[in-house]
Amino acid sequence: MLVLALDPPFGLKGDKSTREIIEETKHVVSAYKIGLPLVLKEGVGVIREVKESSGRRVIVDFKLAEIGDVMKETISILARNGADAVIVHGFIGVEGALDVLVEESRKLGLDVIIVVSMTHKGATRFLDIHFEELLKQVVDLNVHGVVLPATRLHLIKKARGVLGGSIKIYSPGIGVQGAEPGSAICAGADYEIIGRLITRSENPRVVAERVYSAQLEAWRRCRGYQ
Amino acid sequence: MLVLALDPPFGLKGDKSTREIIEETKHVVSAYKIGLPLVLKEGVGVIREVKESSGRRVIVDFKLAEIGDVMKETISILARNGADAVIVHGFIGVEGALDVLVEESRKLGLDVIIVVSMTHKGATRFLDIHFEELLKQVVDLNVHGVVLPATRLHLIKKARGVLGGSIKIYSPGIGVQGAEPGSAICAGADYEIIGRLITRSENPRVVAERVYSAQLEAWRRCRGYQ
Repeated sequence: MLVLALDPPFGLKGDKSTREIIEETKHVVSAYKIGLPLVLKEGVGVIREVKESSGRRVIVDFKLAEIGDVMKETISILARNGADAVIVHGFIGVEGALDVLVEESRKLGLDVIIVVSMTHKGATRFLDIHFEELLKQVVDLNVHGVVLPATRLHLIKKARGVLGGSIKIYSPGIGVQGAEPGSAICAGADYEIIGRLITRSENPRVVAERVYSAQLEAWRRCRGYQ
Repeated sequence: MLVLALDPPFGLKGDKSTREIIEETKHVVSAYKIGLPLVLKEGVGVIREVKESSGRRVIVDFKLAEIGDVMKETISILARNGADAVIVHGFIGVEGALDVLVEESRKLGLDVIIVVSMTHKGATRFLDIHFEELLKQVVDLNVHGVVLPATRLHLIKKARGVLGGSIKIYSPGIGVQGAEPGSAICAGADYEIIGRLITRSENPRVVAERVYSAQLEAWRRCRGYQ
């Protein structure tokens, strides 16, 4: 339910290591999400380190938006280094881009998560105009999941109806970007992606546990699970 | 005029090193472009290695398409490691994304090159619908350059008129992707981005020189320079 975004620096004073953050949070985390800043700082080997020290899935979030051949090469390196899933943009379209990526990801056993919208205001300018088309593309490609922002919950509600139950919704934008823990789950998301609220706090363990409790509570309250 | 895309593997049998490719091509290359595959394989230090062994500018092409804070952190790492320019997508919009990136890039002395369209067919699905708006965004942000595909030359011709002379046009899609060397220059581009045609050939030196000659010839013939 909780996906922890590992974007350095970690700790209130930037003084915690990746390993410390993982140790303090893995008991309540479903998957760790790794972006460019961490991989540039620590090298691609950090993917396997996070995977092995946490025992959790690792989602590599470079928000890929390249031609098919370049993404194919990129994800084959990521898969060899232990990635379980990759995040890619939907707006690049299918022919010569997503088709190549999805085919290759199936061979590699990688889950594909497609960005349909983003948390910042600028995302309404071009992305949200094509919300329905981008969602339809996801359904046609039948990938593992989508990214939708907790900062615009109406998009999650609409998407849940279109996607049915099998395609997972991952939702960033909680904490520093403004949304409350549990709010995206309430609206229909499967996972909330949370980073700085936890990783830059004084006590990541306590904050992560508090977030997880709020998510469980939201799940019970809004989704009718016991 | 020639920007060489360093996407491994290099050489006809994948047996050449980055350093060999640079040695064989730097006399005709304006800048080297480095993408995710090379940085994942060799680490972020490869940026400075390419810069120092070539004496040329290095453009880091991750096709960034993130929220502002993540891109800010990413480009500060790239600048510390010797990058001269970064390539970023325009469709993410300005507020909370490109505005943050452009402001930070100015502090860091990094050139920003914005992707307006791409070479693959899927790019016509969402990107090209917003061609004029994406170009206007570039003019408003007043960045160093744009990326436009040599596979759809009419876009370059139109863009040259809108952008005037000061914003540079970088054009990929030549060689393996189908366009002829010199064709984008003829249409109004300042630089042609070429990769595999040169880097995966039997003799990168000879092919690079041949490409460069074709570009010079196109420049004289189509753009009226002596």
